[in-house]
Amino acid sequence: MLEERLKSVIRDIPDFPQPGIVFKDITPILKDQQLCGEIVDQLVNYLQGIEIDAIAGVESRGFLFGMLLANRLSVPFIPIRKQGKLPFNTISESYKLEYGQATIEVHEDALVPGSKVLIHDDLLATGGTVVAASKLLEKLGADIIGYAFIISLDFLHSEGRLTRFSDWIISLARFDA
Amino acid sequence: MLEERLKSVIRDIPDFPQPGIVFKDITPILKDQQLCGEIVDQLVNYLQGIEIDAIAGVESRGFLFGMLLANRLSVPFIPIRKQGKLPFNTISESYKLEYGQATIEVHEDALVPGSKVLIHDDLLATGGTVVAASKLLEKLGADIIGYAFIISLDFLHSEGRLTRFSDWIISLARFDA
Repeated sequence: MLEERLKSVIRDIPDFPQPGIVFKDITPILKDQQLCGEIVDQLVNYLQGIEIDAIAGVESRGFLFGMLLANRLSVPFIPIRKQGKLPFNTISESYKLEYGQATIEVHEDALVPGSKVLIHDDLLATGGTVVAASKLLEKLGADIIGYAFIISLDFLHSEGRLTRFSDWIISLARFDA
Repeated sequence: MLEERLKSVIRDIPDFPQPGIVFKDITPILKDQQLCGEIVDQLVNYLQGIEIDAIAGVESRGFLFGMLLANRLSVPFIPIRKQGKLPFNTISESYKLEYGQATIEVHEDALVPGSKVLIHDDLLATGGTVVAASKLLEKLGADIIGYAFIISLDFLHSEGRLTRFSDWIISLARFDA
């Protein structure tokens, strides 16, 4: 099963980025592009029959599979970036981190109002980043149709933060502890 | 021709990230995944007959096409990131920017010594980042076999900085001014 294979490859890094956090390292997945292809296959499978106008991915790790998925589905890829990185006119959204605050931005011409947008990030932890991404895209008139993650830390119970935007949430490797 | 189409889509942003710099914005390319596919086709065409063991891409924009290319060629993708972002043991390399200094890192287990690595970034400007990326990968025992860019600012004459590593440099959209 894909989930078991992913879990066998994802590497736990204790105390990163700070003491007490166990970070899920996806870089071993990137070494196996056959596996990366199967990740995209699986996401495409789940998405069958769902109308999608664009994939939004969050800098930086969300660019990796977000772009593969957008290319496979032949729909635009919308890059969401940290403050000050996107060169054209942007709108922004700030959110709290466990340690401090972050601001993300998107180009104001990133999508046509009414577009059905799937939000992708590599990992769902507390959900702060994707909630901010959802608000950001809604400001541009996006219809958030769902979320696709490679990994979700289900023990953090963050999906409830997303259901006000969409309850269509997929994750390929769910960790219960 | 692909080059002309790319040039018609790439957007000039004056005075970004600072006064006097005209930034080449690739986000309009990302809206057209048919065009993104042709970019990868063209890179693969150029690479025919060249032995490649891995593609290294520089955070963040280098992740977009770097991952597409690695996936198409079915070779590992090596993410090169800003300091403090990669979770496992890293080695690092610092370099000068026009305004300040930057440090990039790679995981110490990113490649097998002797691997033939193609370095990708979206844009070649002064070459500082890819020179640092080349030194970084050579420290791990990589054989830098070449460079693939979407855009090169040929008027900055930076290719000479790369030829000590490899003189095999491709760029799909060359700007002479």
